[in-house]
Amino acid sequence: MVKIAILGFGVVGSGTAEVLTENKKIIEERLGCEYSIKYILDLRDFPNSPFANLIVHDFNVILNDPEVAIVAEMMGGSHPAYDFSKACLEAGKSVITSNKEVVSNFGVELCSIAAKNGVRYLFEASVGGGIPVIRPIINDLASNKITRICGILNGTTNYILTKMRDKGASFSDALSEAQKLGYAEANPSADVDGIDAARKIVILAALACGKLISPKAIYTEGISKISLLDTKLAESLGCSIKLIAQAHVSPEGLTAFVSPCMVQKSNPLSRIDDVFNGILIDANMVGEVMFYGPGAGKLPTASAVVADIIDVIAHRDVEPKTIAWDAAADTDLASFEKFCSERVFISSEKLAFPNDIAIISEAAAESVYAYMTESISEELADKIASENKDTVLSVFRKI
Amino acid sequence: MVKIAILGFGVVGSGTAEVLTENKKIIEERLGCEYSIKYILDLRDFPNSPFANLIVHDFNVILNDPEVAIVAEMMGGSHPAYDFSKACLEAGKSVITSNKEVVSNFGVELCSIAAKNGVRYLFEASVGGGIPVIRPIINDLASNKITRICGILNGTTNYILTKMRDKGASFSDALSEAQKLGYAEANPSADVDGIDAARKIVILAALACGKLISPKAIYTEGISKISLLDTKLAESLGCSIKLIAQAHVSPEGLTAFVSPCMVQKSNPLSRIDDVFNGILIDANMVGEVMFYGPGAGKLPTASAVVADIIDVIAHRDVEPKTIAWDAAADTDLASFEKFCSERVFISSEKLAFPNDIAIISEAAAESVYAYMTESISEELADKIASENKDTVLSVFRKI
Repeated sequence: MVKIAILGFGVVGSGTAEVLTENKKIIEERLGCEYSIKYILDLRDFPNSPFANLIVHDFNVILNDPEVAIVAEMMGGSHPAYDFSKACLEAGKSVITSNKEVVSNFGVELCSIAAKNGVRYLFEASVGGGIPVIRPIINDLASNKITRICGILNGTTNYILTKMRDKGASFSDALSEAQKLGYAEANPSADVDGIDAARKIVILAALACGKLISPKAIYTEGISKISLLDTKLAESLGCSIKLIAQAHVSPEGLTAFVSPCMVQKSNPLSRIDDVFNGILIDANMVGEVMFYGPGAGKLPTASAVVADIIDVIAHRDVEPKTIAWDAAADTDLASFEKFCSERVFISSEKLAFPNDIAIISEAAAESVYAYMTESISEELADKIASENKDTVLSVFRKI
Repeated sequence: MVKIAILGFGVVGSGTAEVLTENKKIIEERLGCEYSIKYILDLRDFPNSPFANLIVHDFNVILNDPEVAIVAEMMGGSHPAYDFSKACLEAGKSVITSNKEVVSNFGVELCSIAAKNGVRYLFEASVGGGIPVIRPIINDLASNKITRICGILNGTTNYILTKMRDKGASFSDALSEAQKLGYAEANPSADVDGIDAARKIVILAALACGKLISPKAIYTEGISKISLLDTKLAESLGCSIKLIAQAHVSPEGLTAFVSPCMVQKSNPLSRIDDVFNGILIDANMVGEVMFYGPGAGKLPTASAVVADIIDVIAHRDVEPKTIAWDAAADTDLASFEKFCSERVFISSEKLAFPNDIAIISEAAAESVYAYMTESISEELADKIASENKDTVLSVFRKI
């Protein structure tokens, strides 16, 4: 009988208790092993919950109980989630988390502490909610070098952009609607400013190349400045605007960033709509694969948390396979200024480009012009934008 | 040093040798273990291949060499692929295969022999080519009950249907083009008649519920009768025609079948085009997830074969996790006659439906009429079609 503790009885924590209970019979059959939830840590009481009698308020009850082998941390935020996770790993308990903030900021240390203590630190639910992506990268793409990851990793912004495109809603109206539906927080900054997506892409990049970049160190641009004219011109150019998190692994090093992009309709990411997420991976042998599904939500995210719990239980008698990351050094990173991509410039007047830059296509609406260029560097795109700062309204990368 | 043998030096066999060689350094780093290819079995010699010196013509050389721990069977066809796989498993060697014909017909026996001999029989490459789908179902959806699998599992037919829809090519012209490009065999029956997709869906269904149905026992309808008028009317109804393999797991039992379907544009499978495959899975906790990528091809398929090889090597010192299937009994199957789905009837004259059947939408082109009905049983759909057999040109299920 394996004993599990859950830290945090919010959306994902209560979902995890529900999945473990609802599907207990088939999970135990698959595992050939029984389990039970012994404690749920929360500051609040939940007198009407079927799990009311498992609630504890003191973390040390869990930490000091040698029967607890697995701790599922679903508290959110850095502290005390990081501190509790670290203490559990040091006490020889495996830790499962959906907390991208902790994984992206403290993943190197926590993976290393897990390895030293012969336990595991797993975080499938931290990226893409219920979509299997982290374990498939580790196991199923193990025969490949991953060269590129492009993902729609934030459901809130994807919902807003879908409403802007399909219903002609303004950014602020679409955001209000997302807030009403519970898709966006009262303070939506982490979502709409791209911070959540940045945390997720550095985790995926670390899985691809073993180097974890600080999410604060990557270029991160959100969607709050996107206008309806932008989405209209995107349509005319055969694109949808999506908030895309990218990681590129080249001989020059690693590049990761988050920005709204024009996504060509032929790219499967262009059709990932509403709150769904999609992760497109290019690897040297398989080519292009994509994982699609619900990027958030109570039961989907809990489904991924419980997959990690099952993984730990299934491998409880073997030496744990651990993830080993290094903190990315400056020398691991490629120059972002030299990173090249096709661009779309949106301008209030006709725009003259240097002669040697090829324009792939153009569009116009309401006396505003859009130009899609060949692949140019960040440096050159910035130069063109700043030289035309009185007329250029916005600039998008294109994938 | 783990020694590997490859059976069959055709497209996937030579791809496997290439992946194992090309990515050897990173794979060995990830594994912390070295490997080498010791033999490649083929009837032919390949004097100009870098692997020429590994070619053997006698299977017994491999079978009787105790150094060979892993055998990758990529011969195709049932015999001798099945016989060789069985002999290797009985000799204590793990077997990896891309051979859906063998897995779908002999999977129950081969998995059981593997378990008895403490070795593994793995077949990630048998469904979806390079797309990670089998291991994700086993590991990542382990916290779920799978209720439905709908897949575009055959790249050849998807290529043909895409050309018919987008270029207005007839079935026979699109097939010729697919043959010219090497996407279709000279004898295309296994692909265009749905046989290949039937083999794959019974494998996925067995992963979902532990019961393997004989692929010959499921309703299988191919795409050779689809007309350009069908594709045109599909467009008018907001659908694309795709060859869809389905498995449904309900309290009444398991249903699996293959048929061309009208796929509504809002369904992510409607946008899986050309030779790509996509597998959409509904499960009780995660909801809907989809896996997308190259469903065939030398290096993609080899990527999945090598992922299985890596899995075997990584777990070489632990008791193997085995797959246990039973042959599906009649009592495991739900009645196909009672299976319900929305339907599209295409008719040369206006069609009168029984009053209690709701028509969801209609279209017409070139004096041919299309009617999309509410969900009705197979039985009822057959009855309507046979009562109107002089005018009904074709009937499609809709997803």
